[in-house]
Amino acid sequence: MVIVMEQKATEAQIEVVIGHLVRLGFDVHRSTGSERTVLGAVGSGHVDDPGVLAVLEGVHEVVRISEPYKLASRAFKPGGTVVALGEVRIGGDEVIVIAGPCSAETEEQVFQTAAAVKRAGAKILRGGAFKPRSSPYSFQGLGEKGLQMLRSAANEQNLKLVSEVMDVAQIELVDRYADMLQVGARNMQNFSLLRELGKTRKPILLKRGISATIEEWLLSAEYILGGGNPDVVLCERGIRTFENYTRNTLDLCAIPVVKKLSHLPIIVDPSHGTGRRDKVAPMARAAVAAGADGLIIEVHTDPDRALSDGAQSLIPSQFDQLMAELRIIAPAIGRGICVEPVARRGWAV
Amino acid sequence: MVIVMEQKATEAQIEVVIGHLVRLGFDVHRSTGSERTVLGAVGSGHVDDPGVLAVLEGVHEVVRISEPYKLASRAFKPGGTVVALGEVRIGGDEVIVIAGPCSAETEEQVFQTAAAVKRAGAKILRGGAFKPRSSPYSFQGLGEKGLQMLRSAANEQNLKLVSEVMDVAQIELVDRYADMLQVGARNMQNFSLLRELGKTRKPILLKRGISATIEEWLLSAEYILGGGNPDVVLCERGIRTFENYTRNTLDLCAIPVVKKLSHLPIIVDPSHGTGRRDKVAPMARAAVAAGADGLIIEVHTDPDRALSDGAQSLIPSQFDQLMAELRIIAPAIGRGICVEPVARRGWAV
Amino acid sequence: MVIVMEQKATEAQIEVVIGHLVRLGFDVHRSTGSERTVLGAVGSGHVDDPGVLAVLEGVHEVVRISEPYKLASRAFKPGGTVVALGEVRIGGDEVIVIAGPCSAETEEQVFQTAAAVKRAGAKILRGGAFKPRSSPYSFQGLGEKGLQMLRSAANEQNLKLVSEVMDVAQIELVDRYADMLQVGARNMQNFSLLRELGKTRKPILLKRGISATIEEWLLSAEYILGGGNPDVVLCERGIRTFENYTRNTLDLCAIPVVKKLSHLPIIVDPSHGTGRRDKVAPMARAAVAAGADGLIIEVHTDPDRALSDGAQSLIPSQFDQLMAELRIIAPAIGRGICVEPVARRGWAV
Amino acid sequence: MVIVMEQKATEAQIEVVIGHLVRLGFDVHRSTGSERTVLGAVGSGHVDDPGVLAVLEGVHEVVRISEPYKLASRAFKPGGTVVALGEVRIGGDEVIVIAGPCSAETEEQVFQTAAAVKRAGAKILRGGAFKPRSSPYSFQGLGEKGLQMLRSAANEQNLKLVSEVMDVAQIELVDRYADMLQVGARNMQNFSLLRELGKTRKPILLKRGISATIEEWLLSAEYILGGGNPDVVLCERGIRTFENYTRNTLDLCAIPVVKKLSHLPIIVDPSHGTGRRDKVAPMARAAVAAGADGLIIEVHTDPDRALSDGAQSLIPSQFDQLMAELRIIAPAIGRGICVEPVARRGWAV
Repeated sequence: MVIVMEQKATEAQIEVVIGHLVRLGFDVHRSTGSERTVLGAVGSGHVDDPGVLAVLEGVHEVVRISEPYKLASRAFKPGGTVVALGEVRIGGDEVIVIAGPCSAETEEQVFQTAAAVKRAGAKILRGGAFKPRSSPYSFQGLGEKGLQMLRSAANEQNLKLVSEVMDVAQIELVDRYADMLQVGARNMQNFSLLRELGKTRKPILLKRGISATIEEWLLSAEYILGGGNPDVVLCERGIRTFENYTRNTLDLCAIPVVKKLSHLPIIVDPSHGTGRRDKVAPMARAAVAAGADGLIIEVHTDPDRALSDGAQSLIPSQFDQLMAELRIIAPAIGRGICVEPVARRGWAV
Repeated sequence: MVIVMEQKATEAQIEVVIGHLVRLGFDVHRSTGSERTVLGAVGSGHVDDPGVLAVLEGVHEVVRISEPYKLASRAFKPGGTVVALGEVRIGGDEVIVIAGPCSAETEEQVFQTAAAVKRAGAKILRGGAFKPRSSPYSFQGLGEKGLQMLRSAANEQNLKLVSEVMDVAQIELVDRYADMLQVGARNMQNFSLLRELGKTRKPILLKRGISATIEEWLLSAEYILGGGNPDVVLCERGIRTFENYTRNTLDLCAIPVVKKLSHLPIIVDPSHGTGRRDKVAPMARAAVAAGADGLIIEVHTDPDRALSDGAQSLIPSQFDQLMAELRIIAPAIGRGICVEPVARRGWAV
Repeated sequence: MVIVMEQKATEAQIEVVIGHLVRLGFDVHRSTGSERTVLGAVGSGHVDDPGVLAVLEGVHEVVRISEPYKLASRAFKPGGTVVALGEVRIGGDEVIVIAGPCSAETEEQVFQTAAAVKRAGAKILRGGAFKPRSSPYSFQGLGEKGLQMLRSAANEQNLKLVSEVMDVAQIELVDRYADMLQVGARNMQNFSLLRELGKTRKPILLKRGISATIEEWLLSAEYILGGGNPDVVLCERGIRTFENYTRNTLDLCAIPVVKKLSHLPIIVDPSHGTGRRDKVAPMARAAVAAGADGLIIEVHTDPDRALSDGAQSLIPSQFDQLMAELRIIAPAIGRGICVEPVARRGWAV
Repeated sequence: MVIVMEQKATEAQIEVVIGHLVRLGFDVHRSTGSERTVLGAVGSGHVDDPGVLAVLEGVHEVVRISEPYKLASRAFKPGGTVVALGEVRIGGDEVIVIAGPCSAETEEQVFQTAAAVKRAGAKILRGGAFKPRSSPYSFQGLGEKGLQMLRSAANEQNLKLVSEVMDVAQIELVDRYADMLQVGARNMQNFSLLRELGKTRKPILLKRGISATIEEWLLSAEYILGGGNPDVVLCERGIRTFENYTRNTLDLCAIPVVKKLSHLPIIVDPSHGTGRRDKVAPMARAAVAAGADGLIIEVHTDPDRALSDGAQSLIPSQFDQLMAELRIIAPAIGRGICVEPVARRGWAV
């Protein structure tokens, strides 16, 4: 930490600050300049909130010189993390596509969608059984019945399954059915939930909150990692800005930023990130071109009748077209995409 | 709902939209203009997500013509709601001040602070026993022991008590000690928690999420009201913007906006809303001048050694000074502030 | 400036950074810790864009330790600046109210409004002759004819006059009529305009851009001050955020922040800051309670027929009511408001 | 326009609103529902600011049903506009790359950079002679001498040239040297400048303001189009959000949004949009994948010594690498990139 004193700071004020730092466990290096004094606090001290120092008399500014997260930082694991769901590896050479309906509604819808996304090259099925909704009057999901449908469809198509948990009480249930547990954007700072997920053995898909800084997002990952679960995949899904033509502003620059700061894989959700079907494909292509480790995309066989998120769901033929475009783009960044299914289909013909 | 068609929309496209609306239960009024067609959807139909209509071919824009919340709307209770904690009434003629430490740390700290805020005119003691913290390495609260201290101090000073619940599992415990249960900003859309709080009989203090629109905030109140609990107090505590000199941007205009849209009382938290001690008094004065029904302010007898939020806590003498200023301002909007304690103190002397 | 190196930074990388700093004219203090190296750059060096250092190999973060503005900083003039328009002093003990129509439309409108605002206690008349409008199809102002009307009305009522200049070519003309020249929010970073205004002898009212940080705002003031004009009044008028119930989010905390960082007076525009008539009075009261040196308020005798900004203009009776409320609030912060007119009116009766 | 009345609106209030609309030149369709009344205003009426209606008694909400821009709308020219600088066509099948230094500094720097970007496939040289800078103490450009250097270098390399104009007084000078005139982000709403540019015959590159909505951006284009100049190219360069790890948040979704709303070409500036060299290539690739008609990229032969924007400038070898990646991506959206240079180079070998 560096404490910059005001130009007019008195010697007594400087002494008070030094006293504080020493009490917090820091060693202090004092640098007295012609204009102002700067104090460097080093060593093993710890301060929760640098603001405590910032409000002391005579202090101009307090600057942290290390990130508040450790286990999530790139320095902790320079080579990068690959999160494995069986043979499906997120963070490796292949761009992994997760696809499926927003929520499980009917057997027919779930099975048809699973078959369609598998055919196009998806490796993981997505689908919600518990839906967080802004309005209490909106469809809230089918619960365990939905999970059963999703699991059966995933098994039938040899897909992995990711599904959302909304609170601590749901973990055990969702864990029985899904291969990866999703934390939604609204729960990114539900610390009770994060702590419990740190105790599970399943990979966690951690969505970014719509107003979360990248630092806060990595701190939330730190809760899970610190609990003992090393398998966290980050998911950018749009932040809230003044521009409201689209529901959110997809922050694709978060991809290279996270790649620099952290060793964790990062995927992108262009469906929630735009909220509009005709914007999903351009943003999905852009995400892969920017270096995302994967995508999570909503696909629905009849989106006009979907009980949630129909407006942002692709129909299967649009998803096929998108996957074909992504196969052209991936090599530009030295990666492949759904290599096997393409091979198999080539062979089948 | 009003559906505005594109200028080039075909008759077939218009028919598809009308079909959708009828299927959703609406009556449709069609208005064919020289430039474009506009469809009015009225009656008892219901649509979760207007985006489903917005993505249909030929649709230019979909406009909702009623708020998605009902129980929280001003129309539901035009006269306004007064939330009572015994004789303390939030939303009436008196501006109610809630004050106390960020979190309970020691007996001495809690009792001294309670005595100080009571003396200055506060009616309700605040204090946390469970603290949501961005970092897993920060102080997380004393739990039940903290609640016991807070309750004893409140009893001793004849103050009411508000304390935060972070998840469903904590409700029963906090409910045993506190007179009002607080939902923190990060939990404003923790719908599982909101639903459970709808079943309690204690007033709820619902903080605004840092990136929540006013509509989303009222929808979260709707979850609680819809569960059967009519006593919700809203609390503005700053939103996240590009300006980062202060931790958040306190949106004081939310006060008159909420007063127009809803019947619920609204108070302001200038401590979290600014994050800096020297900004608390100006914003507290401003909040009362703008018509807030109350304030919630952090006070600490030794903020430099506070385990959390010390940077934004007032010391008792600053709180006294602030209360004196507020007593001058309140009459400008036809209100009083802490009338009794002043009277009593006058009488005591 | 403080340069924090990455933990893994090599000695060679550190040497490159030191070389850069020395070339830029800095003296470098090196502090080698167990975890990382921190470099302090002091002395008379100068760097436009610290990013140039931030992108060097091995650099973790670059932290400026002094503000980029000098003439606008509080340190430059600790006692604060009072900007005088004749006997009207902005930044002194009295809260100064500026009021009038958005734009001059007709003689009748201008004269009636000037009389009304004078009667209620305003000291300065506002009114535009050149209007910046988002749409080329909107009313753009009356030009010189409007300035003539405004000057005559101000003279008749013994009011000072402020009016906006939109570009360099208009300065001479507006300068002939107005006592203070206004720079609108959209022109806050029109540096050609700011530089020219630095050469005039009239006080400048500098509105904050809707997405300007406080630092950028003070840097724009620095352009004017650096040009030789010491009389700058800052005006907060709302920033753009995700919340769009109101047109902008009025950032009242900017008042105490600016008071700490700068010696320049700061006033508030609750009309543009909210965009809605019924929100003007609450925000005007709040601004005075927060310590603003003045207000600028739109008043129109027939706002429903105004050619611009009618939605946010008060009618004279609302303005009277507001002034009465402000007179109660001002003493809470040790100030008066329009003392003389009140006295005179008392005397007249 | 659709005016939604409050549920409790009286017949008298409704009549007042209808009267207003008729006076503004509208025909009014009244739709009386069981819950509330909705008024449709159609025909040739005009209202600058719908807020004037929104503040009338009994009005719940006013909804515009047509965009306020006309010449810039897709409906005006459904086939899309191609802006030609001689044989270089922006908006056609080829993705056009503009590259060069932030500002002209020395002959050597300009000529070397021009040669490097030409070799890699750029078609247009960029470079500033007048620089808008937040701080008055920063390098402000070489003026006409810089323009001369840039023109000579462009001629030598058979490149077109784009350069920025900061105010009306500079138009004539820059117009003598450049093939396309750039309006910077800070000037996007400098309406005096836009109006004058509408009278020139050169294509205009209109950057998006950092806090401009897409609608405001298109309205600014409307000023130029309405002045008689049909050749406007839009440029997304990042918006200001709460996330400040990067200087701005590049809003790539603006590409498909603009493509739907307008016929004008849109390019992307990943250099200003990120502010960091290592983020430029990922965002450039993403922009092309999302469907941008072109890119504008800062390249400098010695960025560590650049007088401005060095932190975000690529060195020539990085630019070569990026162009190679873009050539892989462009076919995914059915486009080519710098076809000729590649062919020529192939032929040369």
